[in-house]
Amino acid sequence: MALEAERIGRYERHQRKKHLVAAALPNTSLSTKCSPSGNVQFTNWVSKSIPLIIGLLSTWLFQYSQSPHPATVDVDTSAALSQLASQIAATNSLPCSGHGYMADFDTERSLGICKCYECFGGVDCSQVIDNCVIDLDHGDPTMFEEFWFRNAANTITVILGYQRMSYFAQSKHVWFMENELEVQIRELHRVVGNAVTEGRHIVVGTGSTQLFQATLYALTSSDQSKPTNIVSAAPFYSSYPAVTDYLRSALFKWAGDAVEYNLGAEHEEPYIEMVCSPNNPDGRIQHAVVNGTGHVVHDLAYYWPHYTPITGAADHAIMLFTLSKSTGHAGTRIGWAILKDERVAKKMTKFLELNTIGVSHDSQVRATQVIKAVIEGYTSSEPQSGSPQTVAQHSDNNKLFHFGNSVMHYRWKRLREALNGSSAFSIPGFQPSYCTFFQKDIDQTPAFAWLRCKKTADCQAFLKERRIITRSGRHFGAGAEFVRLSMLERNQKFEMLVDRLARVEASRTPD
Amino acid sequence: MALEAERIGRYERHQRKKHLVAAALPNTSLSTKCSPSGNVQFTNWVSKSIPLIIGLLSTWLFQYSQSPHPATVDVDTSAALSQLASQIAATNSLPCSGHGYMADFDTERSLGICKCYECFGGVDCSQVIDNCVIDLDHGDPTMFEEFWFRNAANTITVILGYQRMSYFAQSKHVWFMENELEVQIRELHRVVGNAVTEGRHIVVGTGSTQLFQATLYALTSSDQSKPTNIVSAAPFYSSYPAVTDYLRSALFKWAGDAVEYNLGAEHEEPYIEMVCSPNNPDGRIQHAVVNGTGHVVHDLAYYWPHYTPITGAADHAIMLFTLSKSTGHAGTRIGWAILKDERVAKKMTKFLELNTIGVSHDSQVRATQVIKAVIEGYTSSEPQSGSPQTVAQHSDNNKLFHFGNSVMHYRWKRLREALNGSSAFSIPGFQPSYCTFFQKDIDQTPAFAWLRCKKTADCQAFLKERRIITRSGRHFGAGAEFVRLSMLERNQKFEMLVDRLARVEASRTPD
Repeated sequence: MALEAERIGRYERHQRKKHLVAAALPNTSLSTKCSPSGNVQFTNWVSKSIPLIIGLLSTWLFQYSQSPHPATVDVDTSAALSQLASQIAATNSLPCSGHGYMADFDTERSLGICKCYECFGGVDCSQVIDNCVIDLDHGDPTMFEEFWFRNAANTITVILGYQRMSYFAQSKHVWFMENELEVQIRELHRVVGNAVTEGRHIVVGTGSTQLFQATLYALTSSDQSKPTNIVSAAPFYSSYPAVTDYLRSALFKWAGDAVEYNLGAEHEEPYIEMVCSPNNPDGRIQHAVVNGTGHVVHDLAYYWPHYTPITGAADHAIMLFTLSKSTGHAGTRIGWAILKDERVAKKMTKFLELNTIGVSHDSQVRATQVIKAVIEGYTSSEPQSGSPQTVAQHSDNNKLFHFGNSVMHYRWKRLREALNGSSAFSIPGFQPSYCTFFQKDIDQTPAFAWLRCKKTADCQAFLKERRIITRSGRHFGAGAEFVRLSMLERNQKFEMLVDRLARVEASRTPD
Repeated sequence: MALEAERIGRYERHQRKKHLVAAALPNTSLSTKCSPSGNVQFTNWVSKSIPLIIGLLSTWLFQYSQSPHPATVDVDTSAALSQLASQIAATNSLPCSGHGYMADFDTERSLGICKCYECFGGVDCSQVIDNCVIDLDHGDPTMFEEFWFRNAANTITVILGYQRMSYFAQSKHVWFMENELEVQIRELHRVVGNAVTEGRHIVVGTGSTQLFQATLYALTSSDQSKPTNIVSAAPFYSSYPAVTDYLRSALFKWAGDAVEYNLGAEHEEPYIEMVCSPNNPDGRIQHAVVNGTGHVVHDLAYYWPHYTPITGAADHAIMLFTLSKSTGHAGTRIGWAILKDERVAKKMTKFLELNTIGVSHDSQVRATQVIKAVIEGYTSSEPQSGSPQTVAQHSDNNKLFHFGNSVMHYRWKRLREALNGSSAFSIPGFQPSYCTFFQKDIDQTPAFAWLRCKKTADCQAFLKERRIITRSGRHFGAGAEFVRLSMLERNQKFEMLVDRLARVEASRTPD
């Protein structure tokens, strides 16, 4: 719900000087015979036949003609929107079958026609194009659209034209950071139990990629004579080397595999070790490997119950998280760092100021609402007794991690079955562990499959011939017999992938 | 209005297979005697007395029980929100007198209390704190809040929880860029006539600061042996040196004043000249000064009718613009580059991918709507004859540049009057020029005042003693007798500034 509208609504009720009535009548049939006896008039009566009336939303706005406090906005936008959202959510499915979007009139000159994503066609994008290119190069978390569609009522972002125009946050101790987002981030970690935030500093960034760069800036010094070595155990996230080196900074440079670095003589020099756990690309649980006193940055983008058992609250000096892999809102470009050292927090903030003059406030507002909705899924129906055992036993419709883990569990099962006994491919095996969040043993179900081609030296090329786009192991400091492929795509695309991999196995020649 | 909702609405109407009725009854009194005769029931009847009913919004949602096209969302969210917005706009003024915000219950534990910005106090932030610190260090364009509050109906941004989750834009040729934003940017420049966009490439960034860095990256090469010199004629925007050098890149380095650079021998080396016109900090119209064949980047952040006569459509190789200084939405962090060379566009896009994995889609959606509203202010009531003479003659309530220019004209007049014959301060004078947009001569009314202290060597310190925070000329490659101060603050803060400067003049000692 709209934060601004919520505030305004509360202010209204608190002041008791204006009067608001929001009357909502879902699932109530409305008789138009009301019209002659009352003085309600209907305009824009577009429809002639009304097969089923599913809802009614009415908002009345009242104000004193001589208000002693004119500086208020007289509308319970929040309640009205919540109602609209419920009705949206009451519909059956995503627009264009969830496999496309509706073109805009002004720009596309094609009034309301579905434009289908790759692999789908037809008027409503429900037709599967069998031999299409399946692009799994990126970890685009569109799998989560389904969850948020179901929970649309809690997650409408509304921003009025005059709101959040300033560079500065409304309530802040870091100048650009919306205080409420920070509060919700801390609460999310408390609910999930995956990171300690008490007494820690939070810095919000434009996704965790920007925060990675902010960290490098914060941990190095403008007057150092040699660039600091940045290392990570292979296979490492392919962005680490690319993002470290693209500007050829004198502050830091990519120095490759942390295991090799540890064996060399260089670790007397300043270094920063990136520890991504669970690891992108291969899902391993990782720890620092360099035997030295350099900085360690923990990239915990995937340390969520969707992907891995939560084994405790992480409590490292520098931890990075991102909305993209927690709630699935990659397009919102919001990440956050949890930091022990205030000086690091301040220098990272300086980086964000120089790099992008802070972080989009629209994105911060949306992230706040989305995270709030996740938290409410686990707390709103919590019994008064507060027994922690009940957390995992609620109805799961509005429980993001239950949704995520269940989808990922299904997908990994499907993939393992399809590749079971395969002579062409192998994927890593994992042992289940006890998850403090679900309070039972669960499997590792990583966001990416780290696939090995058993019989070909260039797995990426082999799969490309079969119209499956993946990222080669070479980008991750590993061999070309490996590829990374995303497990986070929309359902039907995942099913197509599995079917195609199974066919490759059967045919052993390109389709 | 909501883009998604608009699309959905159009799709609905186009399909003619669902039925929508939106009945809006502003300024209609509603009798509750309707209730017994019809079957309308009211819940949550909070109010006992109803002094004035100012509006009613009703939305009915209909759907076939056995729809042949279930993949649609059955709600005219757009119309409903537009109505709500009109009612918001019908109220008298901004919350907390426009000088504060309402604290949120969950985080502040202070239900709906106004938290006032600096210089304001009281329950509704209407009290001026006379001796407060007036911070004019940044160019925070909060002046424009007033305009957008008046035009709230056209500029509600609504994003449902499941929308725009992907890294990728829905309709794009640049992967992260929303096509509709690009269309609106081109249209805005057509309406204003301040830049050529036909046949040009547009790249959207997280504000123009990110695009400045993207430009440096695009115009240099990873294998060059020496960093490219970045220069700009002093006084230059203080961010240019800071942003060029913070990462100590081997690709580019700050080389100072372009005039001095031109006199030296260095201009045989590769260089990039930044031309900010009208100039930040001093409002001058600028042209490239280095006599060489290096790249020239035109930062046209202030080339809008608020600040300067539009003398023609700029047509340079690389031009940067920003939402912050055009519509005033600094917090949205959106800027754009207009480019002749596709290779430059592609390499800038690569920078945006490496730096922040694209640009917030929430911000892009909001920017699209805001720009659309600006355009509609100048085109919606345009007569069929299409005579360009009529553009400036419409009612000005929804005309952003009329608002902006009129406020800036007033403020510069006020400032000049206050400093007229001053022995303490001087400000630059400008000649009026013919503006093709307003079709008459108008004054230069820059976003910043470039103030010179006549009797003190450190103008920033002198003003700081008087509790006015400015940015010293030293940051702009100029003398400490200069300061830059923002002319874009909210009205009352500007008035306080002028009053205080006038008092300084009268007293010649600190208050």
